[in-house]
Amino acid sequence: MRIDGTAWRPIWAEGDGETVGIIDQTTLPFAFRTKRLTRMDEAAEAISVMRVRGAPLIGVTAAYGMALAMRDDPSDAAMAAAYETLHATRPTAINLRWALDRMRETLAPLPEGERFACAWALSAAMADEDVEINRRIGAHGLDLLREVAARKGRVNVLTHCNAGWLATVDWGTATSPIYQAHDAGIDVHVWVDETRPRNQGGFLTAWELHQHGVPHSIVTDNAGGHLMQHGEVDLCFVGTDRTTATGDVCNKIGTYLKALAAHDNGVPFYVCLPTPTIDWRVRDGVAEIPIETRAPEEVTEIDGALPGGAVTRVRIASPGSDALNPAFDVTPARLVTGLITERGIVEASEAGLAALRPEA
Amino acid sequence: MRIDGTAWRPIWAEGDGETVGIIDQTTLPFAFRTKRLTRMDEAAEAISVMRVRGAPLIGVTAAYGMALAMRDDPSDAAMAAAYETLHATRPTAINLRWALDRMRETLAPLPEGERFACAWALSAAMADEDVEINRRIGAHGLDLLREVAARKGRVNVLTHCNAGWLATVDWGTATSPIYQAHDAGIDVHVWVDETRPRNQGGFLTAWELHQHGVPHSIVTDNAGGHLMQHGEVDLCFVGTDRTTATGDVCNKIGTYLKALAAHDNGVPFYVCLPTPTIDWRVRDGVAEIPIETRAPEEVTEIDGALPGGAVTRVRIASPGSDALNPAFDVTPARLVTGLITERGIVEASEAGLAALRPEA
Repeated sequence: MRIDGTAWRPIWAEGDGETVGIIDQTTLPFAFRTKRLTRMDEAAEAISVMRVRGAPLIGVTAAYGMALAMRDDPSDAAMAAAYETLHATRPTAINLRWALDRMRETLAPLPEGERFACAWALSAAMADEDVEINRRIGAHGLDLLREVAARKGRVNVLTHCNAGWLATVDWGTATSPIYQAHDAGIDVHVWVDETRPRNQGGFLTAWELHQHGVPHSIVTDNAGGHLMQHGEVDLCFVGTDRTTATGDVCNKIGTYLKALAAHDNGVPFYVCLPTPTIDWRVRDGVAEIPIETRAPEEVTEIDGALPGGAVTRVRIASPGSDALNPAFDVTPARLVTGLITERGIVEASEAGLAALRPEA
Repeated sequence: MRIDGTAWRPIWAEGDGETVGIIDQTTLPFAFRTKRLTRMDEAAEAISVMRVRGAPLIGVTAAYGMALAMRDDPSDAAMAAAYETLHATRPTAINLRWALDRMRETLAPLPEGERFACAWALSAAMADEDVEINRRIGAHGLDLLREVAARKGRVNVLTHCNAGWLATVDWGTATSPIYQAHDAGIDVHVWVDETRPRNQGGFLTAWELHQHGVPHSIVTDNAGGHLMQHGEVDLCFVGTDRTTATGDVCNKIGTYLKALAAHDNGVPFYVCLPTPTIDWRVRDGVAEIPIETRAPEEVTEIDGALPGGAVTRVRIASPGSDALNPAFDVTPARLVTGLITERGIVEASEAGLAALRPEA
């Protein structure tokens, strides 16, 4: 999407064909910086310190990391070492393993002399595939926005966390229908949940929307229910880390509360997802999906910008008090109006999902 | 309640009988400071800059402010001027007007020579009345905690915002059952919603509980639903700014989302209130209660402590993005298990509230 009028992706192959550029997301929203990745270990570092984040983007960065490794040493040993190093960066990220497995399966049978060129091309193809998946998600979601716009003019969408283009290779998932609607001239305004504790909404989603020129307002995570009670939200669009075979949705902590409020007020609540994030082995999301508990300091401390622009970390909790920091929650399928996928919009139920099974 | 083992109130008459001490809440939780109020205008300043806050505490501070005015000049003109000055500090606070009206009605008929002594005594009586109301709320709520403790041992209570002793003259409203349970040896642990944007949970409720020695954990406002899904919350206790004749409850933004989650998970959701905060003229809380929209900077900026302890303000939102800041929401009576008042626990309904009508 656009930054200050120019089209960007969060990752790209650089002009000489042998280095990779990324937007360094660790300094957003307070400073915009890019970084050149010239070796595999730089790609690994970028993933592990979250210069790139978001499942699809992590996968593509790992693929490029493997390609950089093959340029320097196309041996089987180097491939195995790169696999281990890259996989260890974020061991629970499903896309990371998927991307690395795909690279290895393709490269291993090839003669060493062909491995780098193939790895480079496959990385680029995986990036483009992700863009196409997200574009399709957006095209399906756009129909929903058009319908509201035709009925009442301005469309107010609420979103939680960052399921935006910074988390993918372009478009984002939950933001894809929004960008497409905006680009098509629909008057769309976004309520951006700040999304405590890491504020990915107020930091990243708001930054994305501002740069692309989409009208939006940051709200606290507490505000969405009130807005829905007063007719200020037409649709909710959120992303997901994992969807069960029955349509339960695991996403950033707090998503469940917004789904409850949407249900209580008759506001459609849609989850936007690439079908590879469906976990066909899990049936009961609340009971079966383990929820990561992260460091309490993410709750009790925050990075912010001083008036001069310098970024500093401050404590925002009473000294002496501890915090608990569950990172995700599960929204039961009964609260989800529909799942917007690259293959169309389906009901959040076993029956609805059946059409998306890989074997279907 | 106790601070570091010593009993405190947030306001007190000082030894010489003619000045008033307060805890300066503007520096909490990062620094504990008290302040002496020696003149009416200092009391007014303390209310307007929120050195004292919380409806019951504001009322008592205004009463003492009137008493200080009477000490310096007991004339009708001085009384009228003090009324205007004190009332202008927080014009929408219902308790403030109620306290000032009560002072004026009592003092106006008296000869000037008796006004100060009466004002001083009445202020102290109003403070003690508030303590007694909150003590009774706690005694009724304590029965609920005892019941859970008898069944399962540790009791986990979730609360939102600060309905604690810092907002009253002692005990607090929502915290009163908790303090009484803790003091009675019940194993009670409190989930403290940080309560964005002003973080009264993470700043004030956590500070109170820590000082009194009550086990607690700060959580983001996003976390409560997940905790309830997993059986980690036995009861919710919250305060309220205004309750309608039908049992709808207006309280700090985000309360409604927790009530939805409690309802969805079968967790009892209680609202603790002094009966004078019932607004008998209002029937439909969502439709009729105007919700204050506060400055967007409360969302986009926050005060925090640097590692050395100095407090600074930082921006925690993407530059260029605006915010909307509704300060309260309304929880419909259907989501409220019961109202805990100084006169007992009643159903959140017109029938339940009927017994509490002033004429009843």
